[in-house]
Amino acid sequence: MKLGDTSRAQPVTGVETLRWRDDALEMIDQRVLPMKTAFLRYDSAEGVADAIRSMVVRGAPAIGCAAAYGIALAALALSRQPRGAFLEGLEAAFRILAASRPTAVNLSWALDRQRRVLDSLGAAAAPAALTRALLTEAHVILAEDIEANRAMGGYGAALVPDQARILTHCNAGALATAGHGTALGVIRSAIEAGRRVTVFADETRPFLQGARLTAWELMQDGIPVTLIADSAAGLLLSRGEIDLIIVGADRVAANGDVANKIGTYPLAVMAQRHGIPFYVACPLSTIDLTLRHGGLIPIEERGPDEVTGFGGQRWAPQGVAVCNPAFDVTPAGLISALITERGVVPRPDRQKLRAIAG
Amino acid sequence: MKLGDTSRAQPVTGVETLRWRDDALEMIDQRVLPMKTAFLRYDSAEGVADAIRSMVVRGAPAIGCAAAYGIALAALALSRQPRGAFLEGLEAAFRILAASRPTAVNLSWALDRQRRVLDSLGAAAAPAALTRALLTEAHVILAEDIEANRAMGGYGAALVPDQARILTHCNAGALATAGHGTALGVIRSAIEAGRRVTVFADETRPFLQGARLTAWELMQDGIPVTLIADSAAGLLLSRGEIDLIIVGADRVAANGDVANKIGTYPLAVMAQRHGIPFYVACPLSTIDLTLRHGGLIPIEERGPDEVTGFGGQRWAPQGVAVCNPAFDVTPAGLISALITERGVVPRPDRQKLRAIAG
Repeated sequence: MKLGDTSRAQPVTGVETLRWRDDALEMIDQRVLPMKTAFLRYDSAEGVADAIRSMVVRGAPAIGCAAAYGIALAALALSRQPRGAFLEGLEAAFRILAASRPTAVNLSWALDRQRRVLDSLGAAAAPAALTRALLTEAHVILAEDIEANRAMGGYGAALVPDQARILTHCNAGALATAGHGTALGVIRSAIEAGRRVTVFADETRPFLQGARLTAWELMQDGIPVTLIADSAAGLLLSRGEIDLIIVGADRVAANGDVANKIGTYPLAVMAQRHGIPFYVACPLSTIDLTLRHGGLIPIEERGPDEVTGFGGQRWAPQGVAVCNPAFDVTPAGLISALITERGVVPRPDRQKLRAIAG
Repeated sequence: MKLGDTSRAQPVTGVETLRWRDDALEMIDQRVLPMKTAFLRYDSAEGVADAIRSMVVRGAPAIGCAAAYGIALAALALSRQPRGAFLEGLEAAFRILAASRPTAVNLSWALDRQRRVLDSLGAAAAPAALTRALLTEAHVILAEDIEANRAMGGYGAALVPDQARILTHCNAGALATAGHGTALGVIRSAIEAGRRVTVFADETRPFLQGARLTAWELMQDGIPVTLIADSAAGLLLSRGEIDLIIVGADRVAANGDVANKIGTYPLAVMAQRHGIPFYVACPLSTIDLTLRHGGLIPIEERGPDEVTGFGGQRWAPQGVAVCNPAFDVTPAGLISALITERGVVPRPDRQKLRAIAG
């Protein structure tokens, strides 16, 4: 079975995070970038869930896209089954994908979109028609993500002064999305608008998204980037060498509290201390109005091996205890503005978020 | 030539950072701990300067001890020369050692002690007598460092409540000193005084002193230690999981500003935000009354390779720009107390520092 128009599934930058090819989802392996540029091919929901869990693909919007394709892949594999078995198999796929990572809400948001496709076609629809609709929805989600990033970039670019020295954390770039990026999308759009910028990339231990992914994707685009250890941000700020901080988000609570990669919260505190803006770029799919505040956002605790070494090399003593939370929560009060595809939300609060995302 | 009583040169814990053996300085290679426990042997000032520069030995007090032995080694090598050549050679050793690292003031402090030995014996003294005196002074500096750490531990232990969950950064332990440690010395003394503690060790990128050295030396002593990424401290603090922070220092300015390992300053800011004490344990040799404030402390910028990978493994893209400052400055106003061998200095300021170290 050959389904779907892949033309809209192409990211707009040179970096391809996910692509649909020959009835399978191909994803660049973000565990080995930039040492190796390898695409892995997935033809099952289980495979995609594994890829999300092991961080072959990461970044809240990219995880959402992958999960949507995961449902489409399950449907494809089940599409010759009778409708009862088809729907039952799909439920299993929903469960497996939903459980793959807890913090980024885009995952359940994308699964909800797929569920609405099922619901709208109704129980009477044939598996083949449902499959076609689920795959189309995955393509739409991916295309909309790029459009959202472009729109965010347009709004956010206005916040970036010429000659800005911008600090970013983790990777909220093309590699975290379907293309263009959220935080890095704002930077790309600012450059397209003629602003000259310098980016400082925190290396972002333990998974090194900054050192490996942000540095690499900015260099691919010829954007000036300087790599620093996470703990060097404070010194640069104290020397007046950073003009603004911009990051992405994994989940925004109804009051504007933001869960993002571990280490984001201290950066927001330091930005406030040094009187520079702290921006969060995120699509509306990242906003979770069902959680009243950030303290309710589930914080994933990952395994010890990420901290005791990297890529097969170990440097911590055998048997050492490790605490490896993958995200922290930045209180809304520290956030100068959220940048969304519907506009900039300065000093986000409950009322403003309900107005823009309700 | 066989010189010096080595009995007082033994550290008081199981960890031996530096030791004098058979007319040479042996130092544990801190670049490869804990993967390998290897002692390197040095018989020249140039070798010791190299070891300081490449961080075979690190930690302000340990660097001071190493530099003092570096002068003794230069003297030993020159001791059969005529006095003019001897003194000229020694001057070269002073210069080479003084230039090896810029931030830790203990280096120049130890060299000043050796210079005073030369001055006190006078120009008429024979090279052999001067050599003997310089080696004795190195042994004394090492022994005094251990004594100072013990005294600091005694004073600092009173600040550690039972069941304290203590965060530390970098390694201010036996490995950073002649033995016992400064910040970790306070923890050791608190345990000796019956306090139960849990230590959280920041991994301390880029050189990973926390992951490799602090974790290892605490585990050697059976002290409970949990390793975290540097950027995880904020989340732990926000959850109320840390009761106090204690670190060492590389240089304290006359007004109480503290230069210490990069990443210390943000921790102090976070401690203030979360209302927990932030302590700095340092011997008086770390206090530099000649610098009015921390902005005057030279901040070493180290090479890019420390950030682009670790131990021969590279993960950042080839050609990426790197900014790698090794220290930052914590303003005195963020410091709950300095812990010295003469007592605790709460809320350090110019007057209190002059009183204790003047």
